[in-house]
Amino acid sequence: MLVCSKCGGEYPERFRLRCDCGGTLMVMRETPGSLSDALTEYLDMRRYLGLLPLSSGYPEPVPSITPVSELDVEGTTAIFKLEYLQPSGSFKDRGTWVTVAKLVEEGITEVVLDSSGNAALSLAVFARRAGITAHLFVPAHASPGKLSLLGRLGAVLHFVEGDRMAVHERAVEFAERSGLTYVSHWLNPYFIEGTKTVAFEAYEQSGVPDYVLAPTGSGTLFLGLWKGFSELRSMGEIDRLPKLIAVQASGYESLCGRSSLRSYLAEGIAISEPPRLEEMRRALAETKGSCVSVGDPEIGRALKWLWERGFMVEPTSATVLAALWKLMESDGIERGSKLLLPLTGSGLKTVEGI
Amino acid sequence: MLVCSKCGGEYPERFRLRCDCGGTLMVMRETPGSLSDALTEYLDMRRYLGLLPLSSGYPEPVPSITPVSELDVEGTTAIFKLEYLQPSGSFKDRGTWVTVAKLVEEGITEVVLDSSGNAALSLAVFARRAGITAHLFVPAHASPGKLSLLGRLGAVLHFVEGDRMAVHERAVEFAERSGLTYVSHWLNPYFIEGTKTVAFEAYEQSGVPDYVLAPTGSGTLFLGLWKGFSELRSMGEIDRLPKLIAVQASGYESLCGRSSLRSYLAEGIAISEPPRLEEMRRALAETKGSCVSVGDPEIGRALKWLWERGFMVEPTSATVLAALWKLMESDGIERGSKLLLPLTGSGLKTVEGI
Ligand SMILES: [Zn+2]
Ligand SMILES: [Zn+2]
Repeated sequence: MLVCSKCGGEYPERFRLRCDCGGTLMVMRETPGSLSDALTEYLDMRRYLGLLPLSSGYPEPVPSITPVSELDVEGTTAIFKLEYLQPSGSFKDRGTWVTVAKLVEEGITEVVLDSSGNAALSLAVFARRAGITAHLFVPAHASPGKLSLLGRLGAVLHFVEGDRMAVHERAVEFAERSGLTYVSHWLNPYFIEGTKTVAFEAYEQSGVPDYVLAPTGSGTLFLGLWKGFSELRSMGEIDRLPKLIAVQASGYESLCGRSSLRSYLAEGIAISEPPRLEEMRRALAETKGSCVSVGDPEIGRALKWLWERGFMVEPTSATVLAALWKLMESDGIERGSKLLLPLTGSGLKTVEGI
Repeated sequence: MLVCSKCGGEYPERFRLRCDCGGTLMVMRETPGSLSDALTEYLDMRRYLGLLPLSSGYPEPVPSITPVSELDVEGTTAIFKLEYLQPSGSFKDRGTWVTVAKLVEEGITEVVLDSSGNAALSLAVFARRAGITAHLFVPAHASPGKLSLLGRLGAVLHFVEGDRMAVHERAVEFAERSGLTYVSHWLNPYFIEGTKTVAFEAYEQSGVPDYVLAPTGSGTLFLGLWKGFSELRSMGEIDRLPKLIAVQASGYESLCGRSSLRSYLAEGIAISEPPRLEEMRRALAETKGSCVSVGDPEIGRALKWLWERGFMVEPTSATVLAALWKLMESDGIERGSKLLLPLTGSGLKTVEGI
């Protein structure tokens, strides 16, 4: 069932973005007796079907099980998870895949989303083949390279003059006027069901970490990691949750104190007012975690460091390493700790003139 | 041991490109009693360590187990394997990973390669972190986007004025003069040990196909698939080899008759005189396979078709679908057949101005 994080209201498992009270929703189900009971034989994300709220009709392509790669960083064991090796080049494919499966189950064939970034690209990769027309509302001044990618994937593009907020408003208006489903990944509870599988995989690949550092804007990955590790605890696989570190971009902090200087590089988490803020605060409190904000100079250095080690990621992905360095300087993390750092997006996508 | 494909000469398993007779080499080992005996618990390419000629020192990151995705194409079951979801964006990472592991085993810390394409990018991703300096010889007129990628990964770039042959000669000269190891993936037997794992995975994911269609220039993937399926037969997993279809680019055919019109799109297989030609002929004969050549108009159509189904691949990857269409027209493949089509390279890399 779907449960409201604000009032506890319950809803059947249909596609739905909010509670009647305005609160955000999460999928709540009983967990199986153990992880191994739930695992399938698939060598892709369907490995975790037993833990997903899906009954049939799996979209294609199916997201990968992504590799992890360990490195010593300042005396810690940093476990980088290569989430950028997904079909659309970002972790968002996990959330989109579950979402599209749910839309197909419900017979929904036309949806609306506002974004010109990874979420749009991810939806465009999965929607058309699943028989869903994706109306993507994008800023008229978005990069021609990105727009060309979206067009080649068969998305229907709607150009909006104005800022990000104007794009959002036009998308919602259009959805309401035409009776189509608005599929905001910020709100959609099925999206988090997909991203939680990052925790399952990381656990199978390298056990439970002491800390998880996640780029955190809207919180779809951060909350997925929280839910995934929580479910591992419910199944008795682990007895403590890793401390969750929300890594935010300078100038766009929602959990840390707001900086005056705005990050230009961390565009994937440049979200000042995420609707799931209360749930994120709860995750921080429950795991004794914290929030770290990073700015462009350190993001740039971290990005260079990652590329030199063979990780071709986008700047937003580098925020977690910048945050780790910052925490080590301030003794925020003990040497010898084991840390999970998802690398969220490919650096090959943020290019012009394709 | 290494065995010469021409004279049968044998060599110990060191890093070596050719037999003294000039023939090309393959690694030959006894296969385990069954595939399941050989499998490890890893959820990445190390799953097949028991079938690889490596003893220790695995480079990072480790290539992924890539998803497969089935589609009905003209009444056949086409199994697309998403090899473009590897750390450097192509299947070459499998070969490079085994190669770099072998170089590390032998204490080799400085190597030379000529390429500005996927092979160079793949070597650059793995070499630096493994403590290996990669000297990449590239055409001075190569795309700035690609050169920028190689530079950010920490490769040492050597620019050569002239055509592709001039670049090759300068690389070999430089390696000889400076006593460094030249690591041609066209010749290197360890590269094929990596690419053979595509066959193992595809078999685990969807059984043995009737046909395998592989883009074929130097033949590193084509021969890897042949070797992989042959080893599955040696282990008693399968009792027949799939028919191998070598897909070649118009104007660059080495197995089919040479066309006069040259393909511009299929740059990844624009190789007129591959050194492993005799081995490829043997694979075709042994599997009762064939060769198909495709040109840019049909490659373009196939590329569009793939993108519209969510596969963001480069043009060379689309050759296999173009070949499938061509074979269906000429009754070269029976309806109802099961076909494996590796999608070899990411379409996000072939971009300018990064
Ligand atoms: Zn409520
Ligand atoms: Zn010989």
